[in-house]
Amino acid sequence: MRLMAGKFIVFEGIDGSGKTTQLNLLKEYLRQKGYKVISTREPGGTPVSEEVRNILLSPEHENLHYRTEALLYAAARAQHVETLIKPALEQGMVVLCDRFTDSTLAYQGYGRGLTLDFLHQINELATGGLRPDLVLIFDIDVQECFKRINNRSRDRLERESENFYRLVRDGYLDIASQQPDIYQVLNASLTVEELEVKVRAAVEEILNV
Amino acid sequence: MRLMAGKFIVFEGIDGSGKTTQLNLLKEYLRQKGYKVISTREPGGTPVSEEVRNILLSPEHENLHYRTEALLYAAARAQHVETLIKPALEQGMVVLCDRFTDSTLAYQGYGRGLTLDFLHQINELATGGLRPDLVLIFDIDVQECFKRINNRSRDRLERESENFYRLVRDGYLDIASQQPDIYQVLNASLTVEELEVKVRAAVEEILNV
Repeated sequence: MRLMAGKFIVFEGIDGSGKTTQLNLLKEYLRQKGYKVISTREPGGTPVSEEVRNILLSPEHENLHYRTEALLYAAARAQHVETLIKPALEQGMVVLCDRFTDSTLAYQGYGRGLTLDFLHQINELATGGLRPDLVLIFDIDVQECFKRINNRSRDRLERESENFYRLVRDGYLDIASQQPDIYQVLNASLTVEELEVKVRAAVEEILNV
Repeated sequence: MRLMAGKFIVFEGIDGSGKTTQLNLLKEYLRQKGYKVISTREPGGTPVSEEVRNILLSPEHENLHYRTEALLYAAARAQHVETLIKPALEQGMVVLCDRFTDSTLAYQGYGRGLTLDFLHQINELATGGLRPDLVLIFDIDVQECFKRINNRSRDRLERESENFYRLVRDGYLDIASQQPDIYQVLNASLTVEELEVKVRAAVEEILNV
């Protein structure tokens, strides 16, 4: 499935792990080194995804079934993959994506308890089998993460319990342990600068710099 | 999967085959016999499905990928199954549904050439394994059907070629031949009254009247 010229790098981790900051730093770094880079994020990335998001967030849909929800997210992802990610990879670009299929597994599966088999199938249908070349997991202690996020977006934090985020974190680690060739677990409690060095090292390995 | 008290009866066939007329006649007949009956249709049946329909029909989404489209239809179906069909079956009702998973297979698969395996997976995720107790296939010669539909909704007709509808018709027959216990192929070129007798006979068999 991966006969494309570009590289697909995914940033994963619980909210507040610092992945978005690192994504932006890497984007700038790679651009300065002459790479053609685009960054994108899920959920989102295309107009269709935005409309799907409206359905998901509409208060009149309180009774949205988990299967409906998962299929709507999958539809948004399919459009994202087909109209943005794949074309960029075909043009030889480096695609940096903030969250991808592993967020579905970690949050909906490990976090909320939907069966992983169901979610794997959904992911497969959404991506058509496209897999990242590298997934960076920003791993951090949940309590430490909560302290950070407190200063930023308390709303989001308060929607979920600390225990939920522990399940999600453990989920990420479990996923990473199954495919060590694609996944790199990074210690996200390092300073921004220290972490940046680790990110670059992992990325340069797959870019054959 | 089917430990529910009700019966789930699906009406399938190409446009103009007369299935909707027969559905309405059966609904009235069963009600008079004392059954609790609801009728519904796909795509549609729930508010979420209507919103999904808006995305599918929006002219700004010309570049909707086939996988996105299939997943959006699946999301609408999941909501239809979970919030309308299953609850009605659990209450012991007879649910009459105008089109269901076989429309996806016949139109998108046999008609447009998407792989059946992909569509089977999508259908399974959308329904959670819920299957009809009976599927009535209204089978009719495509040319005859075209003559009928001419008097009604020329727009819809003209969107597709005769050859497309032949593929869809053959698809329905192929599907039916694989599971003769659930499928009944009816000759839809009979008169409304003759066909009504056949429909009642098929339905009364599964209702154990």
